[in-house]
Amino acid sequence: MSKQAVIELAQQLIQRPSVTPLDEGCQQLMAERLTAIGFEHESLFFVDTLNMWSRKGTQSPLFCFAGHTDVVPTGPESAWHLPPFSGLVQDGYLHGRGAADMKGSLAAMIVATERFVTDYPDHRGSIAFLITSDEEGPFINGTPRVIETLEARNEKIDMCLVGEPSSSHKVGDVVKNGRRGSLTGFVKVKGIQGHVAYPQLAKNPIHLVSPALTELSQTQWDKGNEFFPATSFQISNINSGTGAGNVIPGELDLQFNFRFSTEVTADELKSRVVSIFDHHGFDYEINWTLNGLPFLTSAGSLVDATVKAIEHVAHYAPSLQTTGGTSDGRFIAQTGAQVIELGPCNATIHKVNECVSVEDLEKLTDMYYHILIELLA
Amino acid sequence: MSKQAVIELAQQLIQRPSVTPLDEGCQQLMAERLTAIGFEHESLFFVDTLNMWSRKGTQSPLFCFAGHTDVVPTGPESAWHLPPFSGLVQDGYLHGRGAADMKGSLAAMIVATERFVTDYPDHRGSIAFLITSDEEGPFINGTPRVIETLEARNEKIDMCLVGEPSSSHKVGDVVKNGRRGSLTGFVKVKGIQGHVAYPQLAKNPIHLVSPALTELSQTQWDKGNEFFPATSFQISNINSGTGAGNVIPGELDLQFNFRFSTEVTADELKSRVVSIFDHHGFDYEINWTLNGLPFLTSAGSLVDATVKAIEHVAHYAPSLQTTGGTSDGRFIAQTGAQVIELGPCNATIHKVNECVSVEDLEKLTDMYYHILIELLA
Repeated sequence: MSKQAVIELAQQLIQRPSVTPLDEGCQQLMAERLTAIGFEHESLFFVDTLNMWSRKGTQSPLFCFAGHTDVVPTGPESAWHLPPFSGLVQDGYLHGRGAADMKGSLAAMIVATERFVTDYPDHRGSIAFLITSDEEGPFINGTPRVIETLEARNEKIDMCLVGEPSSSHKVGDVVKNGRRGSLTGFVKVKGIQGHVAYPQLAKNPIHLVSPALTELSQTQWDKGNEFFPATSFQISNINSGTGAGNVIPGELDLQFNFRFSTEVTADELKSRVVSIFDHHGFDYEINWTLNGLPFLTSAGSLVDATVKAIEHVAHYAPSLQTTGGTSDGRFIAQTGAQVIELGPCNATIHKVNECVSVEDLEKLTDMYYHILIELLA
Repeated sequence: MSKQAVIELAQQLIQRPSVTPLDEGCQQLMAERLTAIGFEHESLFFVDTLNMWSRKGTQSPLFCFAGHTDVVPTGPESAWHLPPFSGLVQDGYLHGRGAADMKGSLAAMIVATERFVTDYPDHRGSIAFLITSDEEGPFINGTPRVIETLEARNEKIDMCLVGEPSSSHKVGDVVKNGRRGSLTGFVKVKGIQGHVAYPQLAKNPIHLVSPALTELSQTQWDKGNEFFPATSFQISNINSGTGAGNVIPGELDLQFNFRFSTEVTADELKSRVVSIFDHHGFDYEINWTLNGLPFLTSAGSLVDATVKAIEHVAHYAPSLQTTGGTSDGRFIAQTGAQVIELGPCNATIHKVNECVSVEDLEKLTDMYYHILIELLA
């Protein structure tokens, strides 16, 4: 199989403008390639989201590659040097929306799997692809629904490699072996509206909440641990006021977000926030959205295989990190599977002129191939 | 002169829909009445604002009645029980926009003056009317420009009665003998925008400013004095955030207002705010608008005459207060004049179904008449 194979497949995927939740035939293309080498393909369509589950083999352990065919919008196409859905190669880089996040990874794993199945036709265990077209969207009808389906029939993933662009400066320099949890709070503080000239008849919600905000922003929620940085609290939005200069507002809206480690639970954070608000003694309503629980794969066969594969291909060891945003890995980790993330450099993702180094994508294919060898050969 | 006179004149004024900065002939009507009893009339038009200065006599002391013909908008007319520009009397109340703020007062003083001039043709001193059609608006081309004109020709007001609706439960129960100052601050706090998952790369302006807001809202600026309540600080608007839950905002906008006593100056307040912001160590810009300086007429012939007149007509003593919003009196007080405010009850001003008690308006006319007697008979 020529080195060119991964670039050609990535180009074909990029040329399909699969902005969330569209798939635009990407999964069909992948399914054809996998079916040709012995995978059984299942299409799982939920509401507006096309997902696929393709599996080869029935034995344990089940190694799964997880990823997504959807991409974020391009923004104004005129801001791009090259058309975002052209998939052109220029100066050693493959360009286009999804090149790095994550059609490059999809192509790399398909090509790596084709090569592995050819080289090791009698490999042990099973290989599966869990692919969604709703990773960049509300993540409701994608990976969580596929996991539900698998759990309902007792189909258990043992190890999962997520193709998210984990790398920082060169491919494989960073592997994510977990992610922090994400918890969002929406608060409405209730005061009493009035004229600034008659403050005794009003209750200013900005004055009421500000000592609580100071306390929240200065609280140490935990110290993190070997794998996680300390839990962080950030207020993302605060709005109060009628616009008029002589009116004391009656309400204040606040939105904040925790990125939390495994040293604290979402329930603990909620109760500590409520206790701080209550301590300051004002009327409020609070609603919570738990965007994701933290997960960690601190050690095991998947971490070992990934580190070895990177060292074999690139001659350096990856750094294991849990920083950054959350990923679909959180839904898979909840089943008890080992989960890690390895993909290309993320410098251009979600930006104009997204691109990936051709050389990196070839190295990534080799890394995926060697992970398969370590685990299933 | 019949008691009915004041109601008839107030009705004629209400029927002219003089929403700021329109005058709609109100001043012309008043000028005709005053010219008929010996006043010299001057029309002073600045940019979009009609003002009048009518004076009878050339001697000192110069007693001036100050007021405005403009009214605030009606809001949806369908919300009114009676059409807002009809000036109908129902159940003992005169109804309409401006009935209490302050066409009732204008009519009362015209009728009181007519009666006084008839009863005391050889009164001492002079009487003047300083009327604007921009009291409810930006107060740029109204009273301040007339005062400029008078100062330029050394025409000096000794005592000024402002017809603002000062009363609380019954006419004359409250007289304003001063007003607090008003100082507004506009602040932009500068942070660094970023992703909530990478707080170390961002600076959250909400977190930066909140300890300063706590300190500002808990500071005692002064203790007030015999005439003024303590200076109050209120944040009227705070806005920060992109709307997205995962973005740390780059900027925060804040607007706050002081209502301040004569115990502190605007410059002192400014420097104390700047010192608190600087102490907390973040980047910000601040701009100030001084809406009005505080003023006070603690004692003197005008206060004495007003108190006596109210006691004579109503058999109770007024409370002298400096609370509430600011008024055009601040521009007149700056010339060194004694300034007080006496007008009808303010419960319905700036609201739908504005109205004034017919009996109160007749009593107010009597009070104004007795003030003239006390000062000039």
